[in-house]
Amino acid sequence: MMSKKSIQPARLVAAVTLGTAFAFSGSVLAEDGLGDYRDRFEPLPHFPPIPSHNSLTPEKVELGNMLFFEPRISSSGVISCATCHNPALGWSDRIPRATGHDGQIGERNTPTVLNSGFLGAQFWDGREPDLEGQALGPIEADIEMAMDLDMALERLEEFELYQEKFAETYPDDESPINKENLAQALASFQRTLNTPNSPFDRYLHGDMDALNEQEKRGMQAFVDTGCIACHSGPALTDSNFWAIQVPGSTDVGRFEVTGDEADMYKFRTPTLRNVGVTYPYMNNGATQTLEEAVAIMGQEMLNREFDEEMIADITAFLHTLTGEMPDFEVPALP
Amino acid sequence: MMSKKSIQPARLVAAVTLGTAFAFSGSVLAEDGLGDYRDRFEPLPHFPPIPSHNSLTPEKVELGNMLFFEPRISSSGVISCATCHNPALGWSDRIPRATGHDGQIGERNTPTVLNSGFLGAQFWDGREPDLEGQALGPIEADIEMAMDLDMALERLEEFELYQEKFAETYPDDESPINKENLAQALASFQRTLNTPNSPFDRYLHGDMDALNEQEKRGMQAFVDTGCIACHSGPALTDSNFWAIQVPGSTDVGRFEVTGDEADMYKFRTPTLRNVGVTYPYMNNGATQTLEEAVAIMGQEMLNREFDEEMIADITAFLHTLTGEMPDFEVPALP
Repeated sequence: MMSKKSIQPARLVAAVTLGTAFAFSGSVLAEDGLGDYRDRFEPLPHFPPIPSHNSLTPEKVELGNMLFFEPRISSSGVISCATCHNPALGWSDRIPRATGHDGQIGERNTPTVLNSGFLGAQFWDGREPDLEGQALGPIEADIEMAMDLDMALERLEEFELYQEKFAETYPDDESPINKENLAQALASFQRTLNTPNSPFDRYLHGDMDALNEQEKRGMQAFVDTGCIACHSGPALTDSNFWAIQVPGSTDVGRFEVTGDEADMYKFRTPTLRNVGVTYPYMNNGATQTLEEAVAIMGQEMLNREFDEEMIADITAFLHTLTGEMPDFEVPALP
Repeated sequence: MMSKKSIQPARLVAAVTLGTAFAFSGSVLAEDGLGDYRDRFEPLPHFPPIPSHNSLTPEKVELGNMLFFEPRISSSGVISCATCHNPALGWSDRIPRATGHDGQIGERNTPTVLNSGFLGAQFWDGREPDLEGQALGPIEADIEMAMDLDMALERLEEFELYQEKFAETYPDDESPINKENLAQALASFQRTLNTPNSPFDRYLHGDMDALNEQEKRGMQAFVDTGCIACHSGPALTDSNFWAIQVPGSTDVGRFEVTGDEADMYKFRTPTLRNVGVTYPYMNNGATQTLEEAVAIMGQEMLNREFDEEMIADITAFLHTLTGEMPDFEVPALP
């Protein structure tokens, strides 16, 4: 369903070009004896796959950027996507569970939108397959932005600037301010929020000194203990669902979506990209530190007690997954 | 109490230098026959007066910038100064009345923080004389951020980065994370949020073509009808209090602060800087358009009915008061 088209907005070409500076050719690679470990991982590309039904255009990205920061598509008029996916806080909120309309607190921790285009399933329970499906959910959710979608579109219609921007972005549409285009623009903007060139990516590209000895030990432990079984691929997630009940959680997870007993307590494997700056952790956000999270995952998913040293090593490795934060504009809204 | 010290953060020197490009010398000024009108106004300086008890340092500005975007000094953990003073919305919120903690709606329209360092009284009712006094109010207000100040300070203490930044900013203090320093940093950041070089400022500096004919007629009407009696000085406000009851408002205004009958229904004259991008209007935010606001002010304050043409002219003039939006960073918070 996803095609790997390489259409890039013009303004982002510089960043892409810069990225290639790290792509040493294989023949000149230095070695640290860990080639077999490195081969298990994939560096993060500068862009995720772009679906053929929503080509990535600079107009969509710019419009999506505006809409992402637009609080008037919430019923209170003060909550935007950026309220919980706050660029100052790793594009998340750094509180245990999402707080939305009228201060209501949801059941789950806000996932970062960084690199979300690399995920094969959206939301903790995977109830949407892609960002187009995801984008409108929080606008409508009673405990998030609590907004009727038709009313959100009406509010946008009130502004000449949005009429112009939607018309420019979707020139073939007679009524371009519609749900599908709103979702497409938001999804397109989110596909630009990627964090390449982390120390780990530079290491995978051949810069042997980008990780220190402890971080390399952590990488080895990550492979040897089996973390990599689920946390694999460019975003360090298989986008698959696994049963887990972390301390304090009674959330039934994917069962709510499928009604299938086999899906009880299952959650999508979260990305580990930028995990060092997207605390707290777990579906209920009850775990404050990365060390604690590593220990819990060892116990719950791998059935083993990591000793302190291993926890420290894996944690050090996980911090190397923090990449360069993406460029974006705080838009001038109408 | 205010001294006009000219200490400028290094990063802002470029902007200040640029500004002088518009300062034509008097002898080479072009003329449009409106010199007497121009002389009634003052262009906006790049910086407001800096009080001697809170010198403006780059460290305070940077720390204040972080704190302005910091939601964890609210009790919900998701409301920051920037929620209602949103840089995407003219550093205000563009809804009638402020919406804060648990979705509670206050009685008054959120004033923009742009150019607030030029005001001689803070809040609609002037209950604080300066930005240092203003800064902590919304953090504590039950219907805004609803946070106990001591708890806000404790939350900041939890982060090493804040410990470092406060220590660097206030090197002489043994416990630098305190209320006074929090207020000073926020006030310092706000003093950098100015909007010079509006078309009107360029006109006052000698660029006769910066205003068109309608805008100049609007300026003349603004003087001739008496708007300028209260809307004077660089921020187009006398920072004084005047009784007004706009449609739909029962707010007693400054009476709440002083208990003096003479202050019933009195509100501080709002700045007109950037009034074109800080709708809706009036203390209760019930007036959506600038045209409507001009008509109401004519009726209520000047006791006259402006005709349509005059309303259009004055409105056109008011739009020339929109200046260059200030530079700021979306900070990377800990």
